Amino acid sequence: MSARFHTTYHVTCPASEIEARARGIAVEQSVEMPLAAIEDERVMAEIVGQVAGIRELTPGAFEVRVALAVETVGEDAGQMLNMILGNSSMHACVSLVDVEIAPEFEAAFGGPRHGIEGLRARVGAGARPLTCTAIKPQGMPVDRLAKLAHKLALGGLDYIKDDHSHADQAFSPFMQRVPAIAAAVRQAAAVTGHPTRYVPMLCGDWGRMQAQLRLAREEGIDTVMMAPMLSGVATLQAIAREWPDMAILAHPSMTGGGQIAPELLFGKLFRLWGADALIFANYGGRFGFSQETCRRLSELALAPNPRQRAAVPTPAGGMELARVPELLDFFGRDVMLLIGGSLLLARERIPEEGAVFHRAVVEYFA
Amino acid sequence: MSARFHTTYHVTCPASEIEARARGIAVEQSVEMPLAAIEDERVMAEIVGQVAGIRELTPGAFEVRVALAVETVGEDAGQMLNMILGNSSMHACVSLVDVEIAPEFEAAFGGPRHGIEGLRARVGAGARPLTCTAIKPQGMPVDRLAKLAHKLALGGLDYIKDDHSHADQAFSPFMQRVPAIAAAVRQAAAVTGHPTRYVPMLCGDWGRMQAQLRLAREEGIDTVMMAPMLSGVATLQAIAREWPDMAILAHPSMTGGGQIAPELLFGKLFRLWGADALIFANYGGRFGFSQETCRRLSELALAPNPRQRAAVPTPAGGMELARVPELLDFFGRDVMLLIGGSLLLARERIPEEGAVFHRAVVEYFA
Repeated sequence: MSARFHTTYHVTCPASEIEARARGIAVEQSVEMPLAAIEDERVMAEIVGQVAGIRELTPGAFEVRVALAVETVGEDAGQMLNMILGNSSMHACVSLVDVEIAPEFEAAFGGPRHGIEGLRARVGAGARPLTCTAIKPQGMPVDRLAKLAHKLALGGLDYIKDDHSHADQAFSPFMQRVPAIAAAVRQAAAVTGHPTRYVPMLCGDWGRMQAQLRLAREEGIDTVMMAPMLSGVATLQAIAREWPDMAILAHPSMTGGGQIAPELLFGKLFRLWGADALIFANYGGRFGFSQETCRRLSELALAPNPRQRAAVPTPAGGMELARVPELLDFFGRDVMLLIGGSLLLARERIPEEGAVFHRAVVEYFA
Repeated sequence: MSARFHTTYHVTCPASEIEARARGIAVEQSVEMPLAAIEDERVMAEIVGQVAGIRELTPGAFEVRVALAVETVGEDAGQMLNMILGNSSMHACVSLVDVEIAPEFEAAFGGPRHGIEGLRARVGAGARPLTCTAIKPQGMPVDRLAKLAHKLALGGLDYIKDDHSHADQAFSPFMQRVPAIAAAVRQAAAVTGHPTRYVPMLCGDWGRMQAQLRLAREEGIDTVMMAPMLSGVATLQAIAREWPDMAILAHPSMTGGGQIAPELLFGKLFRLWGADALIFANYGGRFGFSQETCRRLSELALAPNPRQRAAVPTPAGGMELARVPELLDFFGRDVMLLIGGSLLLARERIPEEGAVFHRAVVEYFA
């Protein structure tokens, strides 16, 4: 008998239909064909998905557990997503809420190559929370972006990332933007004495991303950002596998409105596939994640595991300086706080405001 | 004034909040920061998204039109998706229903390299509808898959594609599976005299896909399948750009439960980014697309356009032989009918059943 792993879905439908719907998901996510047409006995016994449990949560809302064959996933993150949700994503009434991480998956994907400890070590942070901000807005020419990055770095923050909208547009092409900003951040770091890291956003297909990675490495950059659900989760896996010296911030663009539970997608899957930091839409910001979702996401990202480094939860999305104590009370030490736009409101006082943010975070648990 | 293009969203919220929500989307999908923090006048005037219209559809449901700057998209399909939905995908109450295709996008992306005429020419089909089936289930060893493909090809079908679950698993690795199936289909085609095409499923990151494409080309394969929302839409664009001799079937895995309207995603976006055939979940099958959605999708895919070839609508997902007349009445001549699992129910009579399917399609408009 080959190994199986469990996937868990929430399904809304009339109670009279749930058994057929559950069987439908098990078949859709494995062989996707009428079972009567399967002639191969091994496929019937070992490959066809099986319903492992159905539980009514509230009237008309069910939890369905399905046992899928580990061997259908192989060693490809894209194929894993294909098997755990893929076609069933087209059913609006189905959402994916949990996936059992089989030992084979941990062996194949390897988790973060650096994790929270690696991201702390880059900036000499010991066991404290980390700070991060973003270079915005897109549309400015390279020299202005570099000047802004310089001001932000003068505040002594740990990580300064591109806004996720920085791609390879004509107004600030990647190959010009990244060396200019990297130089600006290096110069500021020489002033502050703090090894602030610039984190460029990777974009385009994997071929173009690799050219971007080569340039980044030439510029001494050791941390990059990408959006797994935009660029493909196999691309996240490829960076972790083929550029193991690079730490990866995963950006939430295109993660959707809950068809994959955020705690699962960020805390378990992005971590498994190699993301070192998980940027997610924090409670109380512009997006609607609940405190419970954020807490659970953080717990999963950090859950001790001898085969996977911990990924650092990075709450973001409309955060403000005044919330630092509340956020650190909530998330604890093992977190990276990302304050983007609201820091930029300080304009000419950005270095000072950045320093206040950084000091507030550094000193909170000191 | 730089060029703008319109995106259209459906938003559900109280009427008292819709203006703020609409402005929020316009900012989120452009600069993602407080406008008060923007010092650059050009960015304020030309880059920040603008609300172009709000219309109440039903109480609490609104259509919001936003004008985004063409230059923020650049020439990257991934970045286009990032700008038209990206972060706003995290709002479950927001769905993307339309995108205006700016002339700059048509110049950058180029649409299908082959389109319906190219797919017809490959199999000498004239102006008739095309036929397609799938090799299932995953989990069988390569020799059995090849035998099945041989039987399917003996029916004289036009296209025989991998099931989308065929990745690079140990039970049928891509590099062994594809040459074996390609040979089996060639042998059968020599018997029938019909140039049946085998269409392998590409998987993994773009580096691995390119190795797969090289092997496919060596095997004389000129048509491949990939899932844009699984592998990244920039990967679809990369195949069309860098392997222009390959025709591309776009598979709907991970296209979601409607957060991007299917007619838009398949009929406009996948076509724009280079897909030659659009496999979608037909009405009356296992998925819930309405007739109206399918009709509109088909119209958009085929809409005459001097700058984009027509992509061939490929309804699928639980189709059966008995529905051929109904489907051809509905879709007309410009369609590829995909019957997968139900054809396999014929078991030893697969060649005959395939021939019946193919003949029914070929002769319907003859």
